[in-house]
Amino acid sequence: MLNFELYNPVNLVFGRGQIAKLSSLIPKNAKVLLAYGGGSIFNNGVHAQVTEALTGYDITEFGGIEPNPRYETLMKAVDVIREKKLDFILAVGGGSVIDGVKFISAAVKFEGDPIDILQKRIRIENNTMPFGTVLTLPATGSEMNSGSVVTINKTKEKLSFGGPAVFPQFSICDPATVASLPKKQVQNGVVDAFTHVMEQYLTYPHDALLQDRIAEGILQTLIEIGPAVAENPADYKLAANFMWCCTMALNGLIQKGVPTDWATHMIGHELTALYEIDHARTLAIIGPNLYRVLFETKKEKLAQYGRRVWNVMETDTDKAALEAIEKTVQFFHIMGMDTKISNYTADYKNTADFIVKRFEERGWKALGERQNITLDKVKTIVEMSY
Amino acid sequence: MLNFELYNPVNLVFGRGQIAKLSSLIPKNAKVLLAYGGGSIFNNGVHAQVTEALTGYDITEFGGIEPNPRYETLMKAVDVIREKKLDFILAVGGGSVIDGVKFISAAVKFEGDPIDILQKRIRIENNTMPFGTVLTLPATGSEMNSGSVVTINKTKEKLSFGGPAVFPQFSICDPATVASLPKKQVQNGVVDAFTHVMEQYLTYPHDALLQDRIAEGILQTLIEIGPAVAENPADYKLAANFMWCCTMALNGLIQKGVPTDWATHMIGHELTALYEIDHARTLAIIGPNLYRVLFETKKEKLAQYGRRVWNVMETDTDKAALEAIEKTVQFFHIMGMDTKISNYTADYKNTADFIVKRFEERGWKALGERQNITLDKVKTIVEMSY
Repeated sequence: MLNFELYNPVNLVFGRGQIAKLSSLIPKNAKVLLAYGGGSIFNNGVHAQVTEALTGYDITEFGGIEPNPRYETLMKAVDVIREKKLDFILAVGGGSVIDGVKFISAAVKFEGDPIDILQKRIRIENNTMPFGTVLTLPATGSEMNSGSVVTINKTKEKLSFGGPAVFPQFSICDPATVASLPKKQVQNGVVDAFTHVMEQYLTYPHDALLQDRIAEGILQTLIEIGPAVAENPADYKLAANFMWCCTMALNGLIQKGVPTDWATHMIGHELTALYEIDHARTLAIIGPNLYRVLFETKKEKLAQYGRRVWNVMETDTDKAALEAIEKTVQFFHIMGMDTKISNYTADYKNTADFIVKRFEERGWKALGERQNITLDKVKTIVEMSY
Repeated sequence: MLNFELYNPVNLVFGRGQIAKLSSLIPKNAKVLLAYGGGSIFNNGVHAQVTEALTGYDITEFGGIEPNPRYETLMKAVDVIREKKLDFILAVGGGSVIDGVKFISAAVKFEGDPIDILQKRIRIENNTMPFGTVLTLPATGSEMNSGSVVTINKTKEKLSFGGPAVFPQFSICDPATVASLPKKQVQNGVVDAFTHVMEQYLTYPHDALLQDRIAEGILQTLIEIGPAVAENPADYKLAANFMWCCTMALNGLIQKGVPTDWATHMIGHELTALYEIDHARTLAIIGPNLYRVLFETKKEKLAQYGRRVWNVMETDTDKAALEAIEKTVQFFHIMGMDTKISNYTADYKNTADFIVKRFEERGWKALGERQNITLDKVKTIVEMSY
């Protein structure tokens, strides 16, 4: 087991009706920026629940944070906070709104040009504006971690940052909010969480036995409830398990003490930046092809995954590993994913060269848990995904 | 899934050599009470590592905290802190030392008679002295939770308390400290952690699917490494998995959203208070008999446990459940547990009546996840354990 530090001070408030607790979670005299996305919170009643819970508070609303939140939009929120001297941010939405609020929280107190937080990937250790979240779209785990991904519109770069000072103070997760989600978003959430686990699990056999068991437990649960919750998001049992799996998939726990990959995300982010393909769908496109190209170094873990998660009975390692990849692709298809780039854009033929060039410009030579996903392998993975 | 709040701000620092980080975790100007137990930390080198890491700090040592820490002893530490105006406590030891330090942390700032914290079970919300821990004996999970059990010598009562203000600020868990533990203590740790999971898992089927998977994963890992780590505690791989399982078994995570039992602990505590039987061994005595007496209400979960954790192939629920109990007893025997009270004391014949009388005096009418373990059932469970 690798050495690790586990620190996660988020107060996670989970369950039906918990939005009413907001007034016990935000200081009474706070001047609050209420940040949200495209307005779905008006349709599903969450905006009404939040404002009712915050009766008496000084609230300034800031809507319009995009899926894949834009640096340019977030800096407008920073201006509003400074102008109105606000001192608390409440993110109401999914991972994009929460990621965006993490950036706002850091940028508003940042000494220097906040674009450096992204382009120089500055670790945020202190001096942020406190914020909490009300999660309405399970997927990214952002409600219980200190990472964030923000897109710079001008350069079409999707960049990550984080640090211990951008944990939410609290996150309210009410599974009832899942009921009104479009099927496509629930599908995306399941596949996003599934791939988060795979990035931290599907590497090589190691001696962190419990971490493997927990990762496998999240995958098993997502497989058990994923197809049903996409069909029936109003089923509280399904929605609660979906929501909790998404949080546990990326709240930092399962990555402790183990090698992690993250190459599927690195490549997938470029597909979103280039073609606006939903994040989860980029992962469903890239993940299986990455396992195929890295088969020799990942096959032992693929076989373990197949046997424990998919009940593959095959005793031969290679065959069990191949069967595991096929089961994964089938699951993504059941979850409504198209798994080829050409399903999303006709203009895909230079994608691999473009992504490789971009990685070269950033000075990246290789990705993955063994740093053996060289740029020629990236090219192959992307070309296999056409 | 039941509503829950998950808040755990402990900075858990896990791995080889992490004790050297102490000086980055305790404020430089702190006046530190270094609290420990019977002196094993002098034999295993941990005391030397701690004092070297804290070179330059103002340190006052306080040894002699007992297994099952005594209120009377802990109050002496409170006196030392007040007299010397200390402002930070470092617990170095196992669950007893850490539980003891939690009480010291609360008592030193408590307005009123600190015995009330125990006898009136006062929830400690704020106003405690900050403390950290260096864990040397994995078992109780106390290093990453906010609960504590303290024994009042005068009344022979073993009582619990807790609250959000008695989380450690940090806990250092170095699996290398396991190497020098006596076999009996490693056996105890495995069975203690195992039963902690069972208390939070072995209830009735519910819809918190992921929590079940994680609980099963901890049990599977303890079964996988338990016998071997008792034989060879210097094997770092085994020790690390043992240590991490113990923490995860009782850091609050797996109890979120699910019913919990805890009756095995309630009854077991009395056996320790009466006969000084090791805590883990009281659990091994009581647990299986409790499952037998509560068979009708626990059999579905027992069957699930048997099938998923012990690979029981039996399709009949009753038979699978019975087989699961037998597997558990076998495991406890493999882990060196004697599972009858008469293995530990000749003077056991009034134990059941005594415990029932004690529960009556406390006003307890029933225990367990359904509150259906009435005092007549407690009597039967204890008598079956003679």
